[in-house]
Amino acid sequence: MTRRAPSLRRTAAAASALRLRRLGIDTYQEAIAYIRSDSPVCKAEGFEARSRLELWCGERRIVATLNVVHFPLIDMDEIGLSEAAWAAFGQADGQLVQVGHAPAVESFSAVRGKIYGRPFGNEAITAIINDIAAGAYSDIELATLITACSGSRLDLAETAALTMAMVRAGQRLQWDAPVVADKHCIGGLPGNRTTLLVVPIVAACGLLIPKTSSRAITSPAGTADTMETLAPVELTAQQMHRVVEQEGGCIAWGGAVSLSPVDDLLIRVERPLGLDSDGLLVASILSKKASAGATHVLIDMPVGRTAKVRSPEAAAILAARLVEVARSLGMVLRVQMSDGAQPVGRGIGPALEAFDVLAVLQNHGGAPEDLRQRALALAAGLLELAGKASQGAGMAMASAALDSGAAWRKFQAICAAQGGMREPPRAAFTQPLCALHAGTVMAIDNRLLARTAKLAGAPKTPAAGMVFHAPLGTLVAVGQPLFTLHAGSPGELAYALAYAQAQDNLVTIGEAG
Amino acid sequence: MTRRAPSLRRTAAAASALRLRRLGIDTYQEAIAYIRSDSPVCKAEGFEARSRLELWCGERRIVATLNVVHFPLIDMDEIGLSEAAWAAFGQADGQLVQVGHAPAVESFSAVRGKIYGRPFGNEAITAIINDIAAGAYSDIELATLITACSGSRLDLAETAALTMAMVRAGQRLQWDAPVVADKHCIGGLPGNRTTLLVVPIVAACGLLIPKTSSRAITSPAGTADTMETLAPVELTAQQMHRVVEQEGGCIAWGGAVSLSPVDDLLIRVERPLGLDSDGLLVASILSKKASAGATHVLIDMPVGRTAKVRSPEAAAILAARLVEVARSLGMVLRVQMSDGAQPVGRGIGPALEAFDVLAVLQNHGGAPEDLRQRALALAAGLLELAGKASQGAGMAMASAALDSGAAWRKFQAICAAQGGMREPPRAAFTQPLCALHAGTVMAIDNRLLARTAKLAGAPKTPAAGMVFHAPLGTLVAVGQPLFTLHAGSPGELAYALAYAQAQDNLVTIGEAG
Repeated sequence: MTRRAPSLRRTAAAASALRLRRLGIDTYQEAIAYIRSDSPVCKAEGFEARSRLELWCGERRIVATLNVVHFPLIDMDEIGLSEAAWAAFGQADGQLVQVGHAPAVESFSAVRGKIYGRPFGNEAITAIINDIAAGAYSDIELATLITACSGSRLDLAETAALTMAMVRAGQRLQWDAPVVADKHCIGGLPGNRTTLLVVPIVAACGLLIPKTSSRAITSPAGTADTMETLAPVELTAQQMHRVVEQEGGCIAWGGAVSLSPVDDLLIRVERPLGLDSDGLLVASILSKKASAGATHVLIDMPVGRTAKVRSPEAAAILAARLVEVARSLGMVLRVQMSDGAQPVGRGIGPALEAFDVLAVLQNHGGAPEDLRQRALALAAGLLELAGKASQGAGMAMASAALDSGAAWRKFQAICAAQGGMREPPRAAFTQPLCALHAGTVMAIDNRLLARTAKLAGAPKTPAAGMVFHAPLGTLVAVGQPLFTLHAGSPGELAYALAYAQAQDNLVTIGEAG
Repeated sequence: MTRRAPSLRRTAAAASALRLRRLGIDTYQEAIAYIRSDSPVCKAEGFEARSRLELWCGERRIVATLNVVHFPLIDMDEIGLSEAAWAAFGQADGQLVQVGHAPAVESFSAVRGKIYGRPFGNEAITAIINDIAAGAYSDIELATLITACSGSRLDLAETAALTMAMVRAGQRLQWDAPVVADKHCIGGLPGNRTTLLVVPIVAACGLLIPKTSSRAITSPAGTADTMETLAPVELTAQQMHRVVEQEGGCIAWGGAVSLSPVDDLLIRVERPLGLDSDGLLVASILSKKASAGATHVLIDMPVGRTAKVRSPEAAAILAARLVEVARSLGMVLRVQMSDGAQPVGRGIGPALEAFDVLAVLQNHGGAPEDLRQRALALAAGLLELAGKASQGAGMAMASAALDSGAAWRKFQAICAAQGGMREPPRAAFTQPLCALHAGTVMAIDNRLLARTAKLAGAPKTPAAGMVFHAPLGTLVAVGQPLFTLHAGSPGELAYALAYAQAQDNLVTIGEAG
């Protein structure tokens, strides 16, 4: 009785052709399809809200989650797509497409197994990552995977396998050099824009450093956002190669070269859940570094109550795991811990941070000394790690490159090679927030400061954010500005100001001593 | 500096008023709000796709996840709502509502703690369940909670606390009787419609059995769907009380009386993940039973390769946990395991199962014997458990009630009290699927059979489904019907037939002996 009926495929196909329509709904990268509940396709296929569908058109296939539409939002013979689904499918409006039930995601059974206590094998992890890269995992399946990997549930072997699978799922850059340097900061400190200083310093000293950076995810500025106020950052792999061959370094946006794209898909679900997982964090960082072709990696790890890593104990465990997994991937890695108690430099926001960077590079008298010192320490560490300077000699080499103007010349050359240096924009509207009573600055909440800068418009408005005037220990008088908000519109300025005024712990001022 | 600015609330409120619009998008109970990306509210509040929003209008508040809309799907000053959000908010189209960031869900920190190995306390579980009931958990947060509770991660105390919190979050029925009987089947067997027989049998014997049942979730028919082809099932708590006072029993749809509503919210996310969790399953079942006011509960647990419980070992562990948690809630519970190898009776689908039930109640010669025997065994067990019959005397009492016609009269009286008995509908289109070769029926895949019946239209079309003719051991000749499909339209009939023909393991026929 079980011979395959030759008519099935045709029957199913005939019943399930729909016209494509871009609905313009941004679900934050979740692929959603919208079909009328009263359409014959829904009935014939037994589709319900949240069914996983497969759409195909010629050789092109995507998987999407169904939202059923009850009112005439779309026509009976149409299938609407969210922006993520639209981008993944890459078909034209009005195109006739086939729709059917998505095949079961086989690799998810390994996720279930992990929940029941069975460790991930290499093959299972590879299958999971490939399925995620292909868009086969729904958001609740991703949340389940992330939960199953959280806490300390990934051991060293699993973390290394996960990292490798993530590397293989994306593009991998190749460099014709024995030593390729890279750096990464485990975020949480507003204004900590050292990459724009470390890259020209170590490149000026002869290290190869093809740096890819991210845009802001939760912060008021990512390194790529700040660099973009000074030069183009959306380089192809080919353009990156040209810049690096010419100047020894670059500062490009990683998203343009598709390094470890699965990492971006996981972060999208991890972030709202706020789950800490050393295993996932290590895989996230190292998959990007390995994809970028790095051989020697320096990690800047600020530790502080309102930074990402909150205690020395957590920092030590995370650092050990980073070193071990990097070694298993053939990379040399070192972690430099730093103080994470307050913002770095003065600017918070893409352009305002760029001005700090320029002041340091140009050796201005008023350049923020903390930013300068952090950048020099990291550059020194990287020069020593990569064997360009002997142990203890890195700081002198880095300082010489900065003081002599060699780093500034290198930075200008990199900007020119990336498409031309430009002047960061300045905000049209500014307003200070002033102290209501006198005293000493005792504590600063990095998270609330970052949120205020975002409300002022950063990073969407590159000139927006704040200039911070009151680092820890500052003696302030009544009416003295604690920070100055910068915004692109009076409304955003007023809103950020009202938010800041309503916070109790943004800047804590103790009694004047 | 940190005095609360009196203008903030007003500023925020003024910036964030939007007109409400029902978009008619069914996201399967996830509350989604749709706002234009270019609206001033999005910019001022810093909203992004997947931000959690709070909407309020007078005293009414809901939380929803944001989807940002890029094209003119809605107007600049509108906020669209998914069907779930629309129902939860209960406001009119065009109503002006306030929008802001949703407050952080404090109870989720206990979920994170559980992931890191800290057991749930009573207070934490209560807070989590109350937040879920209030709609404060997003789907990925629910998936995280479910994963954190999966495998054997909930101990006895946690499971009991979870069950009690779920009971308290919904309505609770009260009965003025020392013994209130209930039964529940741990699903997976198509056609296993014993409730419609057990209730009239034990009620005819004098037991109080106010039965609430569910509609189909994944199956071709739920007990409430089948009962609805015979009598109204959407009874209020007041109507249930009247029926039960008069007849000693009822068969009502549980959804109408809001018993353990959080269970329904969890199942919605659990189901697509396919995660097995004894803890969650026990809490799901027992929260419904405790909410219904049961004191003595009999569990029917079919065990089989394609049933929900797949092995005797898994059955034993689950049964022990059910008994323990029931005891901690003051309920007496017994589990009867049964063979889960094949469908029960002949009909699969609401009306077709109702005809089987009627044949047994009316003592027809051709009534399905397996359904009759299962119902008698369960009724006997329940009579003994509830102390109506002494140990070993239940079967005689149950058989007498059925054979004498007392159960049939009781069933008719219950139907009349629920609003009037009616004739189940019959399908307009039927077609048999016939054996391609001769032999003995060796195996049956319950899941594929259920899927075929759903493709034929069950349970949405109450008359649709199939009549199954070939139980295990049947000797079949070439061309002999294995089952007959019933459908409401020729298209659905053809589609279900093509699907069935394409399956390799729906019914396995061995060589004729």
